[in-house]
Amino acid sequence: MFAATEKALEAEISRLKLALKTSQGEDKSQDIYVGNYLLARLEELGVTSMFGVPGDFNLGFLDLVEDHPTIDWVGNCNELNASYAADGYARVKHGSVGALLTTSNVILASFGVGELSAMNGMAGAFSEMVPMVHIAGVPSVRQHTTKPMLHHTLGDGRYDAYTKAAEQFTIAQAILTDAYSAGAEIDRVLSDCVVKGRPVYITLPTDLAYAKTPSDRLKVPLIRVPPPNEAETEAFVIDEIVHLVVEAKGDVVVLVDACTIRHDAVDEVHDLLYKTGYPVYCAPMGKTAVDETYERYGGIYVGSISRPEVKEKVESAKLILSIGGLKSDFNSGNFTYSIPISRTVELHSHWTKIRYADYPDIGMKQLIPKLTAKLEGGKARALQIEVPPFVAHIPEEQDDVITHAWFWPSLSKFFRPKDIIVAETGTSSFGILDVPLPKDSIFLAQILWGSIGWTGGSTLGAALAAKDRNMNRTILFIGDGSLQLSVQELSTMLRKGLKPIIFVLNNSGYTIERYLHGKERKYNDIMNWKWTGLLSVLGDLEGNLSKSYTVSTKNELSELLQSKTFAESNVMQLVEVIMPKFDAPRALQVQAELSGKTNKYAL
Amino acid sequence: MFAATEKALEAEISRLKLALKTSQGEDKSQDIYVGNYLLARLEELGVTSMFGVPGDFNLGFLDLVEDHPTIDWVGNCNELNASYAADGYARVKHGSVGALLTTSNVILASFGVGELSAMNGMAGAFSEMVPMVHIAGVPSVRQHTTKPMLHHTLGDGRYDAYTKAAEQFTIAQAILTDAYSAGAEIDRVLSDCVVKGRPVYITLPTDLAYAKTPSDRLKVPLIRVPPPNEAETEAFVIDEIVHLVVEAKGDVVVLVDACTIRHDAVDEVHDLLYKTGYPVYCAPMGKTAVDETYERYGGIYVGSISRPEVKEKVESAKLILSIGGLKSDFNSGNFTYSIPISRTVELHSHWTKIRYADYPDIGMKQLIPKLTAKLEGGKARALQIEVPPFVAHIPEEQDDVITHAWFWPSLSKFFRPKDIIVAETGTSSFGILDVPLPKDSIFLAQILWGSIGWTGGSTLGAALAAKDRNMNRTILFIGDGSLQLSVQELSTMLRKGLKPIIFVLNNSGYTIERYLHGKERKYNDIMNWKWTGLLSVLGDLEGNLSKSYTVSTKNELSELLQSKTFAESNVMQLVEVIMPKFDAPRALQVQAELSGKTNKYAL
Repeated sequence: MFAATEKALEAEISRLKLALKTSQGEDKSQDIYVGNYLLARLEELGVTSMFGVPGDFNLGFLDLVEDHPTIDWVGNCNELNASYAADGYARVKHGSVGALLTTSNVILASFGVGELSAMNGMAGAFSEMVPMVHIAGVPSVRQHTTKPMLHHTLGDGRYDAYTKAAEQFTIAQAILTDAYSAGAEIDRVLSDCVVKGRPVYITLPTDLAYAKTPSDRLKVPLIRVPPPNEAETEAFVIDEIVHLVVEAKGDVVVLVDACTIRHDAVDEVHDLLYKTGYPVYCAPMGKTAVDETYERYGGIYVGSISRPEVKEKVESAKLILSIGGLKSDFNSGNFTYSIPISRTVELHSHWTKIRYADYPDIGMKQLIPKLTAKLEGGKARALQIEVPPFVAHIPEEQDDVITHAWFWPSLSKFFRPKDIIVAETGTSSFGILDVPLPKDSIFLAQILWGSIGWTGGSTLGAALAAKDRNMNRTILFIGDGSLQLSVQELSTMLRKGLKPIIFVLNNSGYTIERYLHGKERKYNDIMNWKWTGLLSVLGDLEGNLSKSYTVSTKNELSELLQSKTFAESNVMQLVEVIMPKFDAPRALQVQAELSGKTNKYAL
Repeated sequence: MFAATEKALEAEISRLKLALKTSQGEDKSQDIYVGNYLLARLEELGVTSMFGVPGDFNLGFLDLVEDHPTIDWVGNCNELNASYAADGYARVKHGSVGALLTTSNVILASFGVGELSAMNGMAGAFSEMVPMVHIAGVPSVRQHTTKPMLHHTLGDGRYDAYTKAAEQFTIAQAILTDAYSAGAEIDRVLSDCVVKGRPVYITLPTDLAYAKTPSDRLKVPLIRVPPPNEAETEAFVIDEIVHLVVEAKGDVVVLVDACTIRHDAVDEVHDLLYKTGYPVYCAPMGKTAVDETYERYGGIYVGSISRPEVKEKVESAKLILSIGGLKSDFNSGNFTYSIPISRTVELHSHWTKIRYADYPDIGMKQLIPKLTAKLEGGKARALQIEVPPFVAHIPEEQDDVITHAWFWPSLSKFFRPKDIIVAETGTSSFGILDVPLPKDSIFLAQILWGSIGWTGGSTLGAALAAKDRNMNRTILFIGDGSLQLSVQELSTMLRKGLKPIIFVLNNSGYTIERYLHGKERKYNDIMNWKWTGLLSVLGDLEGNLSKSYTVSTKNELSELLQSKTFAESNVMQLVEVIMPKFDAPRALQVQAELSGKTNKYAL
């Protein structure tokens, strides 16, 4: 039996056992606190760090967290940064979830405040399919009923305005109100979170955190995979795809995108690729889903923004096997895919599309191994199809100015296997697209949601998850404008003893916006900061937790990148890279031009 | 005729003229851009600063803002801070509104991101009755119809999730879709904003900002006051109140609260107080609504947290005239008012309550002058009622440690008339309650909503509004934990050449929470920052825009407060005040005790 199918069947058994426990009532002899039940399930999901800000309504629960043997309370500078950190954690720690704890931030009977500050982070995780659990400490069940005008409330007796807002950006909500149903409710939303790969929301009243609930359910593992594909439909779908491959005479190109990573199909896709030999390309959000040093990998396909040889190869293939696709503007070169539906097969987390036909509930994780078994015979034919090499081209430039054209490819030799490479939306996420990253590295960027400042928080979560997974370094690229949004979280990285390398691209403002509109406008300027003094102010008071550098020339940067002390430093490092105000990476320049056509800013 | 009534009648005329213009169509000869129409109305409302972050969908409109002769684009470090700044601006600049501009933050067709980050600030303004206009730049009208999967969207074709969320925290929304109705829509929500004193929301599509709309409407002024009170009911209400005053034999106490300030009734209340001689007290959110040096003013009434002599005087009065009351937990000593309804008259912005009877639509601004005229005869009797003096008591302490008991009263001599005094929720807002502030000073705190970090942004807005109003210094008190949430906005203060004095109370963590729960818990600790190095890193690169100090003893602080150079500095100043980790102001200690009883945190 295929492993993925076996897992799906095992999960079905759990599903039935849990349903039975819910309906039959449970053994009361081993009751535990609802708060501890929740922590036990999070531990089961592999959560080792919880992000958030302490506040009136989570203080009691926080005692349980602080006393938990394997879950560490991180404690962020603010809630938005905390939500970004939980997002970054979940992206690196596949199969686990990001855990975020908020409430209001001051004394007594209050709530709403902290939750709302985190909302942008929740919405980003929702749109980019990141599994995240948002636990909101709320007033005691009794206070919910009497509804006094507490601080942090809207003052009009509405206690559900926040929940209504949260419903917009989460796929499941558990509004816990009694200890009896708490376990089943927690299980329901945590399973949804992992299986569907999107944020969920739990409200935990102060009194309920310490109410007793049966621990019996914990003996049945949480459901972590979708139900099995219906066998007959699945067999039909596989036949249809094989038929198209035969018709295409094996001229197949695989295009891998974000949901492959998010829905845990990376191993299945790798197996498909190695056994079939099909040429493979990634969309920007799928970058590093495929080993970028693999000889059959041709780099990033992003519609008309692609390098010309990639565009030609992908668009001329007779059949495109698109896996985990997420066609947003930035992920598709502003919707410039030139691939007709008649030549496309789309494999998704829980549906399949073959040309014009939809097959609901046929998910890729179980489908791909069976498909691979049918297709591996064609490998010899597939290997004849040429794949353009994906290599970094460092241009010869006469002057010593650090341009984007030179900067990004120059970094390629600096990266190492198992590095986590985080790129802020905009200049950085566009700049790094054309740079091949090492085997087993992980690339993080928030390309669809694109909230500036996201990496300032998510790098913290990514670096913590990297430790769990025994990864190498965490390296962040961020512009000066973006870092100003979430800068305080560098302090938390210092406090947690993390050692990320942070490249701050100092180009005096919002460069990505200058390319769009208002090139010389004051509104795109920002205050210039003393970046090299930042880490000492934010907590490295003795100067032994970090090092900071400024590089203004190609030579200075090259020397730094070649220095072993720098590459293998045992402290956090910040590098301010001075770059020209009006320069930008190639891909961004093309994107901005396309964008300008869509968006009329003036007459 | 009474001035307030006259204004209400004039506004009625405007209301009718505008309705007529809407229904008749308008003179097309002098069309202007919708963006400029909006700016003209904001200018009419006295807006001189606009807060926000530039982003894809507001860049075109931002050209119009930057080119506007009297409205300055501030440009914040992030959207939450920007919303706080707009809130602070509105609170200081009575009669005007705070203006906030967001969208997403990167290139092209995108939105939602920036808006959501500002949501906590909007909700705070909603709950605390602050007039604020949130303008969200959104994709062009055409893109709203075709709904491609743009970045910053939820990826599921829903474009209205943000609007739904915004509806929870604004009283009126204008979703602009065509140039024809834009003027009427803008007028409608701006009037609601000013008249009702709460946030409103406008979405401005990129293409619509530059579409032409008739400017004819601008000749009719915006409606800024509520409709006139119905004369017969108003007369009845006044008679009822006078009747109760007579019954009480003139033993009346006036209690002034937040909405007196927010709904622009300060002058009317002052007139009432001076002409009747009634003793007057303020709730915490009403602090400085009444001149705190006024001889008939007895200080802050906050239920059982009040100083004993205040509690006794207020609660023993035969009649309480409560003006602009907002009874939230922190504003009422955790709901411990001991004032029976049978002895209370409540005057509100748009209703009156006499003992148990509600009178809808009878608003205080027009009512108070008429009431004053009826009551001023009783002044001699009222003056016989004793008012306890409201003075600062500096305790004699043997050691040199800066305690809260010593710190707050010691500051009283430092404050000057027309100072703006901003206190962060928690330690600072409780600490300053017992300190009398000078004549014409303005006190700002977010007591009901209580979002920590709020003052980091609102101080920026307050300081800008203070310049417009020709006020004196802006002085902020904030704890180290709170400042970490919104710290980057100090940079914007430097960039705008503002000179606030910022006292950072360094007590190693979230002190207010230690009092509530988890006194020694790690989750209440924070990273210690080099506070005196902060301003130089955040933009004062040459060291000529700011000064920073650390004081650890009573002596050091006293010397600094007495120094003329410090008191009249021409640069921004930051004072780190080292205080004991487990100390807190008296009022906070009492509040925490009350809170502990309400909230069970553990078994």
